Order: sequence, then structure tokens, then C-alpha cells
Amino acid sequence: MKIKEIGEFGLIDRLLKGISRGKESRGLFIGPGDDAFAAVLPPRSLLVGTKDLLVEGVHFKRSWASPEKIGYKSMAVNLSDLAAMGAVKPLFALVGIALPSSAEVKFVEGLYSGMRRAASKYGFAIAGGDTVSSKEGVVISITMLGSAKASGLVRRGGARPGDLIIATGTFGDSGAGLWLLSKGIKPLKPEEKYLIEKHLAPHPLFSEAAALSKYATSLIDSSDGLDKSVNFIAKGSGAGARIDIEKIPLSRQLLKVSAARKNLSPVNQALTGAEEYELVATVPPDKLKALKSLVRVTVIGRITKGEKVEYYYNGRQYGFSQKGFEHFK
Amino acid sequence: MKIKEIGEFGLIDRLLKGISRGKESRGLFIGPGDDAFAAVLPPRSLLVGTKDLLVEGVHFKRSWASPEKIGYKSMAVNLSDLAAMGAVKPLFALVGIALPSSAEVKFVEGLYSGMRRAASKYGFAIAGGDTVSSKEGVVISITMLGSAKASGLVRRGGARPGDLIIATGTFGDSGAGLWLLSKGIKPLKPEEKYLIEKHLAPHPLFSEAAALSKYATSLIDSSDGLDKSVNFIAKGSGAGARIDIEKIPLSRQLLKVSAARKNLSPVNQALTGAEEYELVATVPPDKLKALKSLVRVTVIGRITKGEKVEYYYNGRQYGFSQKGFEHFK
Repeated sequence: MKIKEIGEFGLIDRLLKGISRGKESRGLFIGPGDDAFAAVLPPRSLLVGTKDLLVEGVHFKRSWASPEKIGYKSMAVNLSDLAAMGAVKPLFALVGIALPSSAEVKFVEGLYSGMRRAASKYGFAIAGGDTVSSKEGVVISITMLGSAKASGLVRRGGARPGDLIIATGTFGDSGAGLWLLSKGIKPLKPEEKYLIEKHLAPHPLFSEAAALSKYATSLIDSSDGLDKSVNFIAKGSGAGARIDIEKIPLSRQLLKVSAARKNLSPVNQALTGAEEYELVATVPPDKLKALKSLVRVTVIGRITKGEKVEYYYNGRQYGFSQKGFEHFK
Repeated sequence: MKIKEIGEFGLIDRLLKGISRGKESRGLFIGPGDDAFAAVLPPRSLLVGTKDLLVEGVHFKRSWASPEKIGYKSMAVNLSDLAAMGAVKPLFALVGIALPSSAEVKFVEGLYSGMRRAASKYGFAIAGGDTVSSKEGVVISITMLGSAKASGLVRRGGARPGDLIIATGTFGDSGAGLWLLSKGIKPLKPEEKYLIEKHLAPHPLFSEAAALSKYATSLIDSSDGLDKSVNFIAKGSGAGARIDIEKIPLSRQLLKVSAARKNLSPVNQALTGAEEYELVATVPPDKLKALKSLVRVTVIGRITKGEKVEYYYNGRQYGFSQKGFEHFK
């Protein structure tokens, strides 16, 4: 069944039924279906909010993932932005979808099903939204709102020279997964499926971020790629940075796949592969031990005086031209 | 200069400069430029939030209005959704824009300039956003957040049989303005310019809504057209409604233009013209006098038992087929 058969209000009725039945409306004073939602924030807390747009053909392809996965990821990438602020609790999401009237009702219901799964897993409510027609292609716009204590928030710009640069998890997996998807390789080996799954189903790292918030001087997620994250921290902090490339954690799956495929550079993917959703942070050296008792992190470099971000590979400077993904370029 | 010449981060730098210089960052604990914004809500208040998408070719055409006007209207339509909840104070907006890389930097700066004008006029801060590339066409996604006391909020669904249906302002102007724009009529007479301006630059009615919140049993804006608003109130309240068409206020400009143009029906525009942004509410008859001392409203009908929305024209039933704008149809 096409959306044009049931129209905007028929579609909204269907989507609202799915939401009001679930646990996803918890915490709302006024939920979806009115002109706006209304909700109570936890006492003595700040409102924290972020918004990401996902555009068909730019951020996702309908042929690469089920609507359910696309919906889930739309929420996950926004959740990661909340996590990148420190000890934040997700509370409410607003869902905007523009889509052609030729789209299947099933597709939209699939998107919502993935969004509801994320809501259920991370404990937030779908508070409202807007569903409109597009001329061509799907655009998903999510706003994610949460709460935090001021003391639990960590900005991008608080790093000081001498601070260690640390990272959660491995890098390059999501970029390699995207590379595999774009090449259309089939059949896929298990390690290739792993990389693709890392690209399609990122995990927002809330508990890691909460632990980091106790000692980190700066914090960001690696959604624009590790190199961009380090540059944002350096620029925001008015400092420079040195990254030791050989210290960047790489997964055995990435190493195995890149060994078999000549054009897939693990270092390049680790530095510039976007949509990674690991956390990158800085911490004073004397706090590292205490931090490591709370969360698994790897030291990959340090903050320097000056303004340059420099890369070293086994002690030798690495002439890295920063060519990660950037919209419009 | 095209956006692709400066790229995503060059564009963001420019837009952030415009924001941080203005008064638009007030009230923010952490403002635009980090992974998320953080802000304090007024004490003992609820968070109220809404989101509207505006799609090029569906909600606006670049040839019909300056980027500044498009930006301003994007904010205004979201503000109207907040106002439609009662006594609400707008606080923060998140701005998502998807646009082709061939777009002019000037166009985006124009959009932001209009958004900043709305922020300045209505006293909210631009708290963050996301700027990404689209395959084709511009999509603007605004999330508007505000605060309210629970006692100041009025839902769609609280009307009771016997309540009077009241409305602010005149109806049909915005629809007629859109009609004139779509016909491409030039040169325009003053009354035609008035109608087009009503379409391009709506006013969110905060003070009227605050007054209505004292006595109204239900409240909604007329963004989907008067007929849809009345239907939403009736459906949400489990009741019916009777509208006396001859009581619906029409502007002298609409009457003048429709008298001169055969295919422009003022009644049809008043009932189905979307994007009107007047307020429609219900009030118990014994509260009308007190309400009228606070805000100028017109009684256009009443809530009835049953489930039907019926129209009368000078006492005779009016066979109105509900064919207002609906996405996807």
C-alpha cells in the first residue's frame, strides 16, 4: 500500500497507534498528536539537545539496509551526540520525515519500528514529529533531548597541553563497512558482515561517556571521523595535538579484510572514516589510571602547544592530508 | 560563492559567527558548536516542544520569497505550534538544513538572517543544528522548544458539547495569497500584496494564546486549514461541531480580490486554505464575556453531541466536501 492511498492523516493515525501502545510515551505530560509535546524534566537538571538530518543517497540508501535499520540508526546517531556531552540521560525524541508520496506505508512503519526499538532500548519517549511529502527521496530529521547535571557535561574545548588523547573502541570499521557496501561485494565473509554491521548499527556509548565525564577535559564523538574529532578538540581548546597512528586500535576484522583487499587502507579508514561513533577525549596524565578503572580506553596521542594537529607513525611524521568526508565538497 | 567552495565546516563557521555575535545565544549553558546544546529551563516549568519540516516545492518556492522570508517563516510556523498549546514562552530552536552543494552561500546566510530576526523578535535562542547536503532541493527542519506551566497548557481534546467555537483573526487570506502566487499574477494590487504577505509572513499569536489559555477548553492553530482544525478538536474531544460559515471573519482584502477573480472562492479558502496560523478554540458560553475582555475573538459555531462536523450557511446546511491540503494525496 502506497502512502498516497491513506494520505497524511491516515499515516499519522497509524504511526500514533504504534507509539501510544508502547512504553515510548512514558514521562510525557502531553504526548504525540497535539500541536506540541509537553514534559517534565528531572529536577535540578539541564536540558541537553541535538539534531541530525539523514538524507537518502547521502547518509543512507534504501538498498543497503532495511527501513527498520535506517530508523534505528537515525536515533543512534543522535543519541551519540548526547553521549558525546558526558553523563547525559536521553529523554525525548522528535521525528521529522519527508518522503515521496509513492513510498510504501510498510517502509514508514519499518522506520518507526526501528525508532521504537531504539526508544525502548535507551529509555526515551517519542514525543512528536512531522510527516510531510518530499519531491524526491527520504529525509529523516531527528531531535534528541536529554537531561544532565552541569557537572556531568564535558565540552569539546577544554583540553590543555600535556593532556593525553584517548579513545574508546576501534577505528576504521564503519568506514570500511561503507566501502564494502559501496563496492557491492557479495557473498560477504563474516568479518565483512561485521564491518558493515558496525556501519549500519552504531552503539551510542552512554556508560562510557558517563565514566569519561568524571575525568575528561574534553569529549566528542567520532561521527565526522577521528581526524576531524581531534581537530575539533584542538581548535576548540586553542591547542595542537600529536597522534601516534600505530596506537590507534584497529579491529582484527578490519585488518583481515584490508589485508585481502588492496584498495582498502586501514589507516586511512581509521583517520577519515566517518560515522564511527566512538568517543574521543582528553585526560590529564595523572587521571589516566583512575579513568582506566572505570572504562576501557586507549591512549592515542597527546595535546600539544601551538595549533597544529600532527600525525606520527612509529616515531616518524606522517604526511597526512585531511580528506575526510565533508558535506558539499 | 557556492557552498561547495567552502564546504560543510566553512559554512558552519560562517553561520556560527552570525549566531554567537547576536543576542540569540542567551539562556544557553552550552551553545551551538558542540555535539549538543545545554540549557536551563525556567524553574517549575514544563518543557514544550514541536518540530516542522519545510520542503522546497511543497511548502515553499525559492522564486516566491527571499531566503530571509523563508527562514523567518520556518521559525514562525513552529512558533505557532507552541502558541497553539496556550501560555507558552519560546526558548530555543534547533535548525536543520539539507541543501544541494550548488546552493549559494548567500542563500543560506539569508535563511539564517530571517531565522535570527524571528529569534530576536520572539526572544528565543538558536541553540544548534545540522547542515547537510541534499541530492536535490532544500529541506528545512526546525525544532522549537519552550516552557510553560502545566496550568497554562490547553490541548486539542478538551471541548464539551455546548462550548462555543471561537477564532482569532480572519480566514482564507493565506490560502488566497498562495493562490495568487501560484497563478503568477503581476502587477499586484495592494490588497493582493496583503494576502501574499499573510501567506509568506505569518504571526505566531502568543499573547492571544496566553489569554485564551485562561478560559479555553481546547485550542489549536489553523495550520492545516480551519476545517481540519475543527475536525481535530471534535475528534480529539469525542464530540461533533456545527460551524456557521457566515460568521467566519473574512478580510476586506480577501472579499475585494475574490470579487475580482472568479475562481477564487473566499468560503473555500476560509475553510480549507492551509498555513493560516490563526487560533481556533472552544470556550464554555458563560466564559465568553470574560474572555472577550482579554482578546478579540469571533464565535463561529459550537460543539455538538455526536461525531459529525456540520456546516451551515445562513441557517441552511452546507454540503461541504472536505478537500483541504493533505500531504501525499
